[in-house]
Amino acid sequence: MRFDEAYSGNVFIKSHGNYDESDVVIYGMPMDWTVSFRPGSRFGPAKIREVSLGLEEYSPYLDRHLEQVKYFDAGDIPLPFGNPQRSIDMIEEYVGTLLEAGKFPLGIGGEHLVSWPIFKAFKKKYDDFVVIHIDAHADLREEYEGEPLSHSTPIRKACELLGPENVYSFGIRSGMQEEFEFAKTSGMHMSKFEVAEPLKEILPTLAGRNVYVTIDIDVLDPAHAPGTGTAEAGGITSKELLEAIMLIAKSEVNVIGADLVEVAPVYDHSEQTAIAASKFIREMLLGWTK
Amino acid sequence: MRFDEAYSGNVFIKSHGNYDESDVVIYGMPMDWTVSFRPGSRFGPAKIREVSLGLEEYSPYLDRHLEQVKYFDAGDIPLPFGNPQRSIDMIEEYVGTLLEAGKFPLGIGGEHLVSWPIFKAFKKKYDDFVVIHIDAHADLREEYEGEPLSHSTPIRKACELLGPENVYSFGIRSGMQEEFEFAKTSGMHMSKFEVAEPLKEILPTLAGRNVYVTIDIDVLDPAHAPGTGTAEAGGITSKELLEAIMLIAKSEVNVIGADLVEVAPVYDHSEQTAIAASKFIREMLLGWTK
Amino acid sequence: MRFDEAYSGNVFIKSHGNYDESDVVIYGMPMDWTVSFRPGSRFGPAKIREVSLGLEEYSPYLDRHLEQVKYFDAGDIPLPFGNPQRSIDMIEEYVGTLLEAGKFPLGIGGEHLVSWPIFKAFKKKYDDFVVIHIDAHADLREEYEGEPLSHSTPIRKACELLGPENVYSFGIRSGMQEEFEFAKTSGMHMSKFEVAEPLKEILPTLAGRNVYVTIDIDVLDPAHAPGTGTAEAGGITSKELLEAIMLIAKSEVNVIGADLVEVAPVYDHSEQTAIAASKFIREMLLGWTK
Amino acid sequence: MRFDEAYSGNVFIKSHGNYDESDVVIYGMPMDWTVSFRPGSRFGPAKIREVSLGLEEYSPYLDRHLEQVKYFDAGDIPLPFGNPQRSIDMIEEYVGTLLEAGKFPLGIGGEHLVSWPIFKAFKKKYDDFVVIHIDAHADLREEYEGEPLSHSTPIRKACELLGPENVYSFGIRSGMQEEFEFAKTSGMHMSKFEVAEPLKEILPTLAGRNVYVTIDIDVLDPAHAPGTGTAEAGGITSKELLEAIMLIAKSEVNVIGADLVEVAPVYDHSEQTAIAASKFIREMLLGWTK
Amino acid sequence: MRFDEAYSGNVFIKSHGNYDESDVVIYGMPMDWTVSFRPGSRFGPAKIREVSLGLEEYSPYLDRHLEQVKYFDAGDIPLPFGNPQRSIDMIEEYVGTLLEAGKFPLGIGGEHLVSWPIFKAFKKKYDDFVVIHIDAHADLREEYEGEPLSHSTPIRKACELLGPENVYSFGIRSGMQEEFEFAKTSGMHMSKFEVAEPLKEILPTLAGRNVYVTIDIDVLDPAHAPGTGTAEAGGITSKELLEAIMLIAKSEVNVIGADLVEVAPVYDHSEQTAIAASKFIREMLLGWTK
Amino acid sequence: MRFDEAYSGNVFIKSHGNYDESDVVIYGMPMDWTVSFRPGSRFGPAKIREVSLGLEEYSPYLDRHLEQVKYFDAGDIPLPFGNPQRSIDMIEEYVGTLLEAGKFPLGIGGEHLVSWPIFKAFKKKYDDFVVIHIDAHADLREEYEGEPLSHSTPIRKACELLGPENVYSFGIRSGMQEEFEFAKTSGMHMSKFEVAEPLKEILPTLAGRNVYVTIDIDVLDPAHAPGTGTAEAGGITSKELLEAIMLIAKSEVNVIGADLVEVAPVYDHSEQTAIAASKFIREMLLGWTK
Repeated sequence: MRFDEAYSGNVFIKSHGNYDESDVVIYGMPMDWTVSFRPGSRFGPAKIREVSLGLEEYSPYLDRHLEQVKYFDAGDIPLPFGNPQRSIDMIEEYVGTLLEAGKFPLGIGGEHLVSWPIFKAFKKKYDDFVVIHIDAHADLREEYEGEPLSHSTPIRKACELLGPENVYSFGIRSGMQEEFEFAKTSGMHMSKFEVAEPLKEILPTLAGRNVYVTIDIDVLDPAHAPGTGTAEAGGITSKELLEAIMLIAKSEVNVIGADLVEVAPVYDHSEQTAIAASKFIREMLLGWTK
Repeated sequence: MRFDEAYSGNVFIKSHGNYDESDVVIYGMPMDWTVSFRPGSRFGPAKIREVSLGLEEYSPYLDRHLEQVKYFDAGDIPLPFGNPQRSIDMIEEYVGTLLEAGKFPLGIGGEHLVSWPIFKAFKKKYDDFVVIHIDAHADLREEYEGEPLSHSTPIRKACELLGPENVYSFGIRSGMQEEFEFAKTSGMHMSKFEVAEPLKEILPTLAGRNVYVTIDIDVLDPAHAPGTGTAEAGGITSKELLEAIMLIAKSEVNVIGADLVEVAPVYDHSEQTAIAASKFIREMLLGWTK
Repeated sequence: MRFDEAYSGNVFIKSHGNYDESDVVIYGMPMDWTVSFRPGSRFGPAKIREVSLGLEEYSPYLDRHLEQVKYFDAGDIPLPFGNPQRSIDMIEEYVGTLLEAGKFPLGIGGEHLVSWPIFKAFKKKYDDFVVIHIDAHADLREEYEGEPLSHSTPIRKACELLGPENVYSFGIRSGMQEEFEFAKTSGMHMSKFEVAEPLKEILPTLAGRNVYVTIDIDVLDPAHAPGTGTAEAGGITSKELLEAIMLIAKSEVNVIGADLVEVAPVYDHSEQTAIAASKFIREMLLGWTK
Repeated sequence: MRFDEAYSGNVFIKSHGNYDESDVVIYGMPMDWTVSFRPGSRFGPAKIREVSLGLEEYSPYLDRHLEQVKYFDAGDIPLPFGNPQRSIDMIEEYVGTLLEAGKFPLGIGGEHLVSWPIFKAFKKKYDDFVVIHIDAHADLREEYEGEPLSHSTPIRKACELLGPENVYSFGIRSGMQEEFEFAKTSGMHMSKFEVAEPLKEILPTLAGRNVYVTIDIDVLDPAHAPGTGTAEAGGITSKELLEAIMLIAKSEVNVIGADLVEVAPVYDHSEQTAIAASKFIREMLLGWTK
Repeated sequence: MRFDEAYSGNVFIKSHGNYDESDVVIYGMPMDWTVSFRPGSRFGPAKIREVSLGLEEYSPYLDRHLEQVKYFDAGDIPLPFGNPQRSIDMIEEYVGTLLEAGKFPLGIGGEHLVSWPIFKAFKKKYDDFVVIHIDAHADLREEYEGEPLSHSTPIRKACELLGPENVYSFGIRSGMQEEFEFAKTSGMHMSKFEVAEPLKEILPTLAGRNVYVTIDIDVLDPAHAPGTGTAEAGGITSKELLEAIMLIAKSEVNVIGADLVEVAPVYDHSEQTAIAASKFIREMLLGWTK
Repeated sequence: MRFDEAYSGNVFIKSHGNYDESDVVIYGMPMDWTVSFRPGSRFGPAKIREVSLGLEEYSPYLDRHLEQVKYFDAGDIPLPFGNPQRSIDMIEEYVGTLLEAGKFPLGIGGEHLVSWPIFKAFKKKYDDFVVIHIDAHADLREEYEGEPLSHSTPIRKACELLGPENVYSFGIRSGMQEEFEFAKTSGMHMSKFEVAEPLKEILPTLAGRNVYVTIDIDVLDPAHAPGTGTAEAGGITSKELLEAIMLIAKSEVNVIGADLVEVAPVYDHSEQTAIAASKFIREMLLGWTK
């Protein structure tokens, strides 16, 4: 409660007050206009921030405290409703600015298409990096009913941009037949159904490499994440996703950026999806950034 | 979407099985990608059809039975997610086809932007017609945050297309200052807050004219229509909207087409908005078409 | 309900348009009038069909596509509200017609009592077959508060009709003391609490035999299936039920029919139960029919 | 269900502990098995009792206190699930017992069919009485899809039992064409759409007569009563229903019994329907009984 | 989106950035620990701010724009959970500070007990002022089950502090018999059931006087405000409450402060109560402050 | 609240009618006024009782029937809203009375602070006993924002009262850094994240000792217990908690009392948390008391 300056309201818990002094920047991408089923992830970033106030600032998983990380929550990029092309241009430009300033970008979606401009911005700075993709859906379509800008396409685009050999998908349990065939024949890596076990095998092979991690909350079973647009039965538990975050944190890869997408509060009647997501972001902050 | 055979899906109660023999065509426009607040109206048409099964087929308001009207429910136009321009082109073309075939188009939204291509299609057939617009919002913006294709602009566009003197708005209780100034100075008609009383005055002045009616469900108070994206307190009751429908049915205007938009089932926890909307459509079918 | 033409209503995704050319017939049994606790499963079939539109048509579990199976969704049997006797007579007659026509009947409930007339119809065609019953509840009561026609009795009736040695229950975690005693002493098989592990042992002993499978969605933990009338804590995950479906698909039993019952949409606030059920039905179609 | 001792369960606020000393008996009829649309009213009586604890015991409408009335809440009649015939027999017998004991029966449904056996029980005691029926639906069908025992038929049956000239319906806004024709031609009274205004005209004509009042909660608009199976837009407000209760209380009719039916808690997400119903019952207790 | 200063997040729409330059201060009181029925109003202030982003900044009721008022949203007073005494001390002190600084205090509750320390703070500055109290409940108890600090007592305390002749209650439809007797005999004013009509009579008699207005959202019917702890059927519409706000705005009283209390988001499934409350606050800002 | 006669209200299924003849007393503590996040657990006891009616009376886990245990449900202690000190005094006194009478106290919360006065009451009777604490949260704070009476402090207080060596926590996955340091250095036992596995190791070391067990429902993952105030992702399943209850039942410890706390029905949209809690209480009754 301050009388003499702007009230600093809805930000991720313990956000640092100063952009310049921060190493990590949290930013929201409130976009859901290309989704094919249930929209609503545009409100994901705001809700995750809101419920983060219920989090403890200390992690017993990592024995670290949020005060040990300098991060700044920059709010949401003001994306134009219903204009996917302009939205992804704005995201690419914004993430580019963060990377130029030496920040670690930690993005919150919005629909999964938002990862595509992020990949492009990273490609400008990093010649060589790997994408770890944790999701229920392959997202390997070339287009969706004629639209190349769709929440079903970002990982296919990543394969084109970075080479399929630099894309690693985990937990996939849904997609078109063509997507699974592409996964088998293109040279990318895809682990079906499971996340933690295959990560234990793959992570050592990536030691020392730059890694960008994108997590779609729907990799969780709908029991753990009902608040998402395209729920798919048969997923992993939130305990398993925490384990996966710990495996990456304790591996020898160099995480250079990350995002968490597809939380849709309107289907999240007891707020459990947003509460879980805010905890994952705490662990990502504590485990993946310096 | 087929023009000439039964739609094999969820249809409005008692839909006739044959397009050619029908006088009225019900069609859905599952689009919500330009809305600025809460999306979800893309599921409006399907839900309204689903709950229509709970309706009686007889109206004690009009003493008419649905068997007295020949209508065909054509299902939803397959609009491309996240592409407003292509969506409105498809709507304009589809409604044009209906008008060429001599059908009475009865549209179900979707967001309110869908009315704009409908107006354009009608303008090609009718030199002279009037729009009656029943809504909480003025929808008179020239653009929304730089986007001219927005759910806040269709009535402004109608004024440009038809001349402001041919646009009549009722029930308006929200908008920007500029919109209310435009309403005062442009020559259009705007009744603030009320619907039935001002209709009683205006309808006689429109006797004999062609009239297209567009109803945004949010003209109802949120008590009566919680299931909409942009709820606005202080609205009319569903009893009053039924009265407005009766006033038009019993007037001497010539209704040439109509739509009902902005039902968003995800906020409609007891289905009351969809149930009301399906009743309004029954009354529109019975009262406004031959 | 028509046997020989397309159902003009909501159908399971990719339903074939022609009854005669189909090998499998999906049919709904919208009945919930004998349930002792929370009603609402009458809307299960319609909801499962509705959300099936969000499914992919390809299964990465079985590497099969829905186009490889010819199935016809016949809609719901028009059961008379509040009349259990007439309802079960209609179901028995309808399933009998399917069996005469050589179809594979795939039923969607409705309360679990619907399986009783199905068993009777199968008994008329097959001298010898086995029931695999996957459920939280034993359903072995002789009557429920004086009513022999109750959702708590169908498996007891199956034991009487087929001989207890031909009834195999899995996952049971609730029932009266008498039901568990009957299970122990009658000669039927009952695996308490678990499904996949005991199936691995039992399935080889059934190789070559005709098997009818009935799945009550409440075998899932309420975390995975909140949308059911009689939720019972301590159940299996949807991942485990998928595994059970795969075990049956890959076994050497001859599946001759199946049903999935007790999805009650009104308790299913984020649609997760219906979404899971529609996926199970896709896998049953792909794995259990030719 | 005990007649002579305190019910050890959830009771209506301030229920008297002793059956014998009470003038009024509140009883629940948890039946919903013949409803054609959304079931769930079986839980109405329990929920109304539960939320009655939030009521004040004093009415500022009538300036009376619940301590001025001696009433006993007898709990629910244990109706057999899915057996309409036995259910209505039990209700008729139970109400008969109350009438023999000189009690004022105040029933809580449950579906509207429960009023039919009540009418029969009253007919045995009273040669001459009138039914006041406040409802959205005419309930004048002879049968519903072949079933004469249906929640759509009780008022037709009342006309047959008591003579149509002794049946007065108010607020009706839905029904089949045949029902409205019957209302016009049979000699019964039906006021469409409105309740309080026509009551003001009718009540004086009934002065001195015995009157049984049955209220279907769906006479309220869904804005006021979302928690009901067959919501119908265009209804009255709860303020108007309170006014109607006061009009009867202050009239010169002799109320001999009453019921309130069709509250279905599962659609009543903020409990507003049950809260309103419990207030109506408080006013009925204070205004209609001695 | 700013890079170089703290993100100004969850504040009432268009809040001025500077406390010193502001005439009005909006402050939240997230307290609900003395409520006797359903808690949850502690989250009212945050939710009202959140949905205020969906508001237009212009009022067609008053033809005024939020830019014409200088107000600062100071966030919530950090009240200690479960400690009513310390909470009300903090509120009294905070409001005292605002009054010393010449600000117009506009408070958002929280439970209604918060108004009691506000009255005390105002009494220190103003020798003579009047309270206008708009509510469903009399709030005139001396204590609640032995606790004098209760959400049922603030208006009784106001009568003691200011003299009953300076307290005017409107819309009251619930309370204990003793409260209504106190209202009749003490010299205070109470209008039962209605708000706008009696205000038209009373306001002229208060011309020129200082007035503090406290609005309990439950004066609205539960149809209009389901999101509150103690919903009471038979209330006014949000249209009528808007009319009451306009009547005060256009009267000759001198409004010196105001609050709006008892919005409880957890019962507000479609956000309609919070949306209405944020609109009322906009109108209070535009109509009651300079 | 009566000690010597049947509670006339909602009771746990099969509650014995007589206090004196009962060995176990179930009692509710409807208190939630010190919680720091989402209130609502005051309604936990009533809801758990209500849904207990859907339970079977027989446990297939323990092969025991509720008729084998004599228990009496005494209803809720009438705790004063918003007064923590008086509330805990009342609980301590009430539990003391039960212990004097030789009853086994089985408490239902309410917030976790209620366990503190229970510990004090037990300490008066038992010189030596151990607390087994199953929870997501450490609850080891010395105070919460200055308040020593808080739902975050009861286990710290237990350490002070009983000696840290007599406190065993299981399943802990959230807390402040100081709490985890206290756990490490004080001499108490804390198992992080897991419950069943560490219990298997610890229970044999407690053979023959008196044990009080307190279970916070939020030890379950939010997938299994969404209906609680402070949900924390990454928890155990209800299957695992059932296993833990069985491990204690089959161990050689002497259980002297128990409680289950923090069920908050308002976040429990499909009642799954209350349904699970009522099952846990059935198993505690059958497995932990004679």
